[in-house]
Amino acid sequence: MQTAMRPGSTRIEAVMAAISERIAARSLPPGAKLPSVRGFAKTMHVSVSTVVEAYERLAAQGLVRARPGSGFYVAAPLAPLSLAQIEPRLDREMDPLWVSRQSLESGLAVLKPGCGWLPPSWMPEAALRRAMRHLARADTSVLTDYGMPLGLLALRQVLSRRMAEHGMGVAPDQIMLTESGTHALDLICRFLLEPGDCVLVDDPCYFNFNALLRAHRVKIVGVAYRHDGPDIEQFSKLVAEHRPRLYLTNSGVHNPTGASLSPVNAHRVLTLADQAGLVIVEDDIFADFEEVASARLSAFDGLNRVVQIGSFSKTLSASVRCGYIAAKPDWIDGLVDLKIATSFGGGRMAAELVLAMLTDGSYRKYLEGLRARLASARDEVTARLASLGIKPVLRPRAGMVLWCQLPSGVDSAVLARHCLQDDVVLAPGNVFSQSQTAGQFMRFNVSQMDDPRIYQSLARGLDAIG
Amino acid sequence: MQTAMRPGSTRIEAVMAAISERIAARSLPPGAKLPSVRGFAKTMHVSVSTVVEAYERLAAQGLVRARPGSGFYVAAPLAPLSLAQIEPRLDREMDPLWVSRQSLESGLAVLKPGCGWLPPSWMPEAALRRAMRHLARADTSVLTDYGMPLGLLALRQVLSRRMAEHGMGVAPDQIMLTESGTHALDLICRFLLEPGDCVLVDDPCYFNFNALLRAHRVKIVGVAYRHDGPDIEQFSKLVAEHRPRLYLTNSGVHNPTGASLSPVNAHRVLTLADQAGLVIVEDDIFADFEEVASARLSAFDGLNRVVQIGSFSKTLSASVRCGYIAAKPDWIDGLVDLKIATSFGGGRMAAELVLAMLTDGSYRKYLEGLRARLASARDEVTARLASLGIKPVLRPRAGMVLWCQLPSGVDSAVLARHCLQDDVVLAPGNVFSQSQTAGQFMRFNVSQMDDPRIYQSLARGLDAIG
Repeated sequence: MQTAMRPGSTRIEAVMAAISERIAARSLPPGAKLPSVRGFAKTMHVSVSTVVEAYERLAAQGLVRARPGSGFYVAAPLAPLSLAQIEPRLDREMDPLWVSRQSLESGLAVLKPGCGWLPPSWMPEAALRRAMRHLARADTSVLTDYGMPLGLLALRQVLSRRMAEHGMGVAPDQIMLTESGTHALDLICRFLLEPGDCVLVDDPCYFNFNALLRAHRVKIVGVAYRHDGPDIEQFSKLVAEHRPRLYLTNSGVHNPTGASLSPVNAHRVLTLADQAGLVIVEDDIFADFEEVASARLSAFDGLNRVVQIGSFSKTLSASVRCGYIAAKPDWIDGLVDLKIATSFGGGRMAAELVLAMLTDGSYRKYLEGLRARLASARDEVTARLASLGIKPVLRPRAGMVLWCQLPSGVDSAVLARHCLQDDVVLAPGNVFSQSQTAGQFMRFNVSQMDDPRIYQSLARGLDAIG
Repeated sequence: MQTAMRPGSTRIEAVMAAISERIAARSLPPGAKLPSVRGFAKTMHVSVSTVVEAYERLAAQGLVRARPGSGFYVAAPLAPLSLAQIEPRLDREMDPLWVSRQSLESGLAVLKPGCGWLPPSWMPEAALRRAMRHLARADTSVLTDYGMPLGLLALRQVLSRRMAEHGMGVAPDQIMLTESGTHALDLICRFLLEPGDCVLVDDPCYFNFNALLRAHRVKIVGVAYRHDGPDIEQFSKLVAEHRPRLYLTNSGVHNPTGASLSPVNAHRVLTLADQAGLVIVEDDIFADFEEVASARLSAFDGLNRVVQIGSFSKTLSASVRCGYIAAKPDWIDGLVDLKIATSFGGGRMAAELVLAMLTDGSYRKYLEGLRARLASARDEVTARLASLGIKPVLRPRAGMVLWCQLPSGVDSAVLARHCLQDDVVLAPGNVFSQSQTAGQFMRFNVSQMDDPRIYQSLARGLDAIG
């Protein structure tokens, strides 16, 4: 076989072996960047093209991965260590973390119709400033001490009462505060999942669910989400076939579709879950956007096999981090242990601020105004998008998102890449889709779409593609 | 075989089967509490003693676990799901989470010489109130928006300058803010560890390291910690034998011993780590307690194979959650992805408060006063404990902890249980010890030991045991 080798093959193999050894010894751990081609060529006393060829071959073997424009990185076939390597993906610029990073990293100058939150000017600024001035006079221990493991009792009592309004009898002791809604989900996954377990998500679903689940090394299966909940027939088939441990969803205002779960589908999902011993995590993060609460799996089920999570980042502040888990009493103790082990105290200050804002006399009125403002923004944006041939798939009852179909033949990832050149961050459909079947869809946030430059950029992009 | 069965065996087996099925189907997930003996006897139409016997047999099989005084729980042989089941342990009341939960859950009336933080009255209260009032007037986006993925730039710049004072050249882009020091460690573990990997910790070490590592399903090996660092000979042997991925330590003021790593040992540890491709995580949480910085692995190594983590909970506020990771540039991008996936935004408000306090003109003076106060408290508590026959193993250069040897024959867990009856929470040695060889030691927090009732309770406890 030696004679069949191309010239230079042994040198290429030597470079491959050197890198492989470092990967095996973890001096290059998963996710680490490989030495620069030029630098390593010097180290190994070989040509630059030899190193390039060696890296390419390692990439072909799946041991390393090229990131366009950025270099080579150690791959993590099993591990979530480099989440950028989530499959299926288009490229780094369009994986499930793309929208998050673009939206979070860009400054105020960038327009963000693709992000998942309200503009600062829509938030209850005055109440927050009041809360801070109020808290500046609180007892020293409030300002400096760790919180209780379950989290601030007064806030848990408020949450318990809010849940009662939705027909849920949840004692404050069944509620544990977390650092955020994402943190709540992360703890639940740690508590209930083993690596290799299967988790069912909606297709499309909030893109960060995919990123987070990947960090738990689980298999992700998507069920098609309709205007009134998951496709029940497919749900039943997937449960039988994959025996998922968990179904992760949000019922009230579904992200990204804006759909609401119908009572009949809620009942069907719960029945199927009961039969299969499936636990459901219901992310109720958009609860306060609804005037009249739609069907809740957690309300129907009474927190038997449903766990509810939520946070306050969408309607109070994303700068003040606070979320919660409501679960059956038997699970709380184990969750508290996990929370202490992995994040210790819990943010007392953040919980106090949230409490002050929720109990501020202005909160209900603020929500009423917000709902009305969102409703008229949904109408207005729908009309403006229509003139570009972009149409919402459904008319949401509440919330900030519109899930829209693009004109025939337009790939939303291509359009997003176009508009990014104009400093407009969009949320192309496939970042939400496990099956990558949402290429013709786009999620728009109506609260972030006042600026005419967004529509100008969309028009230019559509022109260029069409 | 049927004839050899004791009467009632089939009924016992029926109960065992019913529970096993629920565990297998995850309707009783790991960590969940089993139905009450009385309730389940009714459900199964059997006697209470049948259920007791069934539960005991399941416990003998390792499928469930009894917690004295609390009932039976589903065991988690592989998983960390119920961290209370950490081995080796005495009982739930004395596992590594015991001190955390006792200290965090108890109210202000309880005395806490075993906790790991300063009393509220020792914290920089005025600066914190100033920071809050200041922030109440900040831009709306500061108050309501998500932070940047790396975290507040101005705070990272301050940290970069602080590190420069310790001889470390760390760019702000090499620093990522986290929700806490514990969260920082959790992210690093997620980034670098695979289930089944081995991690080296000091013996004794901060008890929550054990709990957190357990949540990552890794093998934990302890290396004896001396007055000037880890036992180098043992360190070398353990590295060769177990090939750990990570060594987790704190150098400046070691917890719980109060020791400081000597430069010669720092160099030896780094040399051994280099040879073995070992990554070191240095928890620098007690940095500000030191007047003159002791040897830092991260400073010697220049963040090549050392990752530094830290937080502000010990000297600024534990109510305001903020920590950080400083690591080599190649790792930051992957860590940011993981942070977004598992906690999304990062606490902007908390970071702003920390920044305001660190840059408040009063901070340096506060630290000087705090160090002097701690030094005199160490002397005073040493003298008061000496009269009870309790002696510090070494004289710490800085910090709040004294690692003490109890009078001969006194088991610190037994003493801790005695004093808990007087509402005094102690930190018995073995919660810090992977090898469970610290039964004669106790960690005391000098800042929490002004109250004479602590010494009275200790005296009574020692009398009762001796």
